Amino acid sequence: MEANTRVFSFLGGAAGPWRVTQTRTVTGASLPVASRLEIAAGKVPASSADWCLQGAISNTRYVTRAESDRLAAVQATLGRSEAVQATLIPIRKNAAWWALAQDERRHILEESSRHIVIGMEYLPAVARRLYHCRDLDQAQPFDFLTWFEFSPAHVSAFDELLARLRKTPEWSYVDRELEISLLRES
Amino acid sequence: MEANTRVFSFLGGAAGPWRVTQTRTVTGASLPVASRLEIAAGKVPASSADWCLQGAISNTRYVTRAESDRLAAVQATLGRSEAVQATLIPIRKNAAWWALAQDERRHILEESSRHIVIGMEYLPAVARRLYHCRDLDQAQPFDFLTWFEFSPAHVSAFDELLARLRKTPEWSYVDRELEISLLRES
Repeated sequence: MEANTRVFSFLGGAAGPWRVTQTRTVTGASLPVASRLEIAAGKVPASSADWCLQGAISNTRYVTRAESDRLAAVQATLGRSEAVQATLIPIRKNAAWWALAQDERRHILEESSRHIVIGMEYLPAVARRLYHCRDLDQAQPFDFLTWFEFSPAHVSAFDELLARLRKTPEWSYVDRELEISLLRES
Repeated sequence: MEANTRVFSFLGGAAGPWRVTQTRTVTGASLPVASRLEIAAGKVPASSADWCLQGAISNTRYVTRAESDRLAAVQATLGRSEAVQATLIPIRKNAAWWALAQDERRHILEESSRHIVIGMEYLPAVARRLYHCRDLDQAQPFDFLTWFEFSPAHVSAFDELLARLRKTPEWSYVDRELEISLLRES
């Protein structure tokens, strides 16, 4: 069988185009501090890396058509030349979150926490991609990997976005979170 | 890293406690006809099998709290001694389905097709478990594997359930479907 082309590996180690400028443990257990990050297509053996996190790009789970259309109208693509800063945020949510039904999760995420609406305020400055980790072959230490890219001019806006999201009811279900800040050097 | 304990392999071949009584291709390409089925925990090499399908038990994607509570009140567990018949239904949905937003998929699945409500009419006779295939490491030929167990007394009720679901708007998005009928012999 062929590899799932939506699966990617994030390898923290001594190699890769992204230099790690800070590894911050927001909630729960930390990860070893790596000096560089490489993103590889597929499931890559992590033998030479300090850590390896994997996730799959998948269909959206909460966004409505109206929200999706509004997002599509303003969002930026990854890989913009000016977006030399990136942040990788691995997150795990607790068992209580995963035991909720779809309408309960949607209600907490948007009607109560405004996750989508808040994120939209920072578009197109902050480009974003979500990777899902729960249904991969190997048990993963996180449920999601979120990748953000932005220019140095938008660092403080990005920090504000994170601060606002972390104060929401949704974040009371987050039991592990890291914030890995990166600078593109190639 | 450890294996994801929610991942299972369905091995069609010459071994296993389930005898294949019929392999029906409902839509799209068929699979080789196997004589027996084995279900193994984790990702199992398919070397000796005619086919190997993998899926992960995951969180629900559409069911509301009210529906979930109603389901929990009536549904049966797998492995009942009288439930010697089983059917494995591998399904793939087309790209148009996966490009829909959450509210559009929910609307088609339940408000328009009554998938959850129809299924509930056949509880507790038909026990069911859904496996998700899209976010595994290897590209899978199907998006879902649904496993049904019931007693010989409920075969025609089960056939009726399938016939009703296949007439719904949701099924216009199904571009590959097999129906593998099984009898437990151990």
